[in-house]
Amino acid sequence: MTSFFSEEKSVDAVNARMGEDIDPRLRTVMTALIRHLHDFVKEVELTEDEWSNAIAFLTKTGQMCGNERQEYILLSDVLGVSMLVDAINHRRPEGATQSTVFGPFHVENAPIRQMGECISLDGKGESCLFEGRIVDLDGTPINDARIDVWADNAEGFYDVQQPDEQPKWNNRGIFITGNDGKYAFVGSKPVSYPIPDDGPVGKMLAALGRHPFRPAHIHFMITAPGYQKLVTHTFVGGDDYLTSDTVFGVKESLVAPFDKVDNGATIWKSTFDFVLAPGA
Amino acid sequence: MTSFFSEEKSVDAVNARMGEDIDPRLRTVMTALIRHLHDFVKEVELTEDEWSNAIAFLTKTGQMCGNERQEYILLSDVLGVSMLVDAINHRRPEGATQSTVFGPFHVENAPIRQMGECISLDGKGESCLFEGRIVDLDGTPINDARIDVWADNAEGFYDVQQPDEQPKWNNRGIFITGNDGKYAFVGSKPVSYPIPDDGPVGKMLAALGRHPFRPAHIHFMITAPGYQKLVTHTFVGGDDYLTSDTVFGVKESLVAPFDKVDNGATIWKSTFDFVLAPGA
Ligand SMILES: [Fe+2]
Ligand SMILES: [Fe+2]
Repeated sequence: MTSFFSEEKSVDAVNARMGEDIDPRLRTVMTALIRHLHDFVKEVELTEDEWSNAIAFLTKTGQMCGNERQEYILLSDVLGVSMLVDAINHRRPEGATQSTVFGPFHVENAPIRQMGECISLDGKGESCLFEGRIVDLDGTPINDARIDVWADNAEGFYDVQQPDEQPKWNNRGIFITGNDGKYAFVGSKPVSYPIPDDGPVGKMLAALGRHPFRPAHIHFMITAPGYQKLVTHTFVGGDDYLTSDTVFGVKESLVAPFDKVDNGATIWKSTFDFVLAPGA
Repeated sequence: MTSFFSEEKSVDAVNARMGEDIDPRLRTVMTALIRHLHDFVKEVELTEDEWSNAIAFLTKTGQMCGNERQEYILLSDVLGVSMLVDAINHRRPEGATQSTVFGPFHVENAPIRQMGECISLDGKGESCLFEGRIVDLDGTPINDARIDVWADNAEGFYDVQQPDEQPKWNNRGIFITGNDGKYAFVGSKPVSYPIPDDGPVGKMLAALGRHPFRPAHIHFMITAPGYQKLVTHTFVGGDDYLTSDTVFGVKESLVAPFDKVDNGATIWKSTFDFVLAPGA
């Protein structure tokens, strides 16, 4: 009688059970998952109490999910898995602007606005001119690039988190470049905010001695025919949480200057050029 | 600026975030978890679609859990994790009876019965005499051992799965040994049954080309003062699923003889001695 389970051969016992005709990629992924999962349990010699706690944690995390909350994505984010998947799937050529996490607060079909328009509809916070160019790896301006931007308001909330308190499409908009590749719009200077931390993931962060904050940032999703889609943020230089983003989204190249200009029209100016990589 | 996230240093980036003063065991477990989790994602180069599918699977598995269903324990069982945790935490000396999974169907405070009594209260199935001795590593009979047994009925269901159809405490009972260490009771010969397979775990098993069945078995939990608690099963020799138990619970040493005796009183007899290891 072969294939009985033993501590030593636990990985083989499980993986040998898979059928002959299953999807080859599923086989690859699950075979590796079983190996790493069992290696983990063996390395730490997981106790029965720890196993029970893990079952309870995973169960509660699933039960915290609903229409407006995805606790498993939060978990993936704070464990660095979301950033790792992003990194693996969006390796870019030297010189191209790097990507970062998409996050849960994007909304499709924001209004298309004229260059220079203001997206801060609640008038809160310190006004900031965001400007720069969309260029290719050679520095040539890209025509007809579509720039979808979204940010929190001065209190650290996205409009979808406060549907009754913020104007619809507050701090959101889409801008289309012309031949010069330039973009410009006015918004409010982003502020740092905590991810939702009243669930199992927040409790885990507390037990790990970690805070739940993200440094101030504004989201960009930029597409243009013939170029790879770029999902990224720019971060406000000097933010307290820049080196401790709870979802590990910060890359040094994405930290943008926020210069105090106080020119009567706006208080701040942030200039940042986005370099797109060629591709579908 | 150090500690930014990168694909290469993703493990260090996450683990370096833990606070100074956290529980040392939590640090050990989480540090290893992050390393194995990231290694897995890197090894298979997990795609964004696969990540989304994983998030959805984990969410659904949590949401399937309720008072009468623990889908995450099922998941742990079918991935061999429950058996691995049992193996790590119950290493026994040579010669002691091995343990196996506890399972979800035990009920506390079953009735204490006289030796030889019948626990099959619905009268279904083929009757079987279970008998043997509780002994120590030297073969000395153990007095005052408490033997808690539970089994499915002839249709493959535990009484708690069919509260309206089976008599209360059907196929359950507790027996206490005397000086001779002997036990004996009559039950019905156990039959193989599928674990609940109408949820995410059942779908996963199907995708992996695996069946959801457990080979026929009867559960024993045996305690005696001065000995380690033993949670185990005996399995019916010759069962079709003996080498493919969907939760990997079978150990060769736990396969018991089921001899046809047809002596008027019972159709089958299964003789099995349990050897307890010294301990708390
Ligand atoms: Fe954000
Ligand atoms: Fe069972």
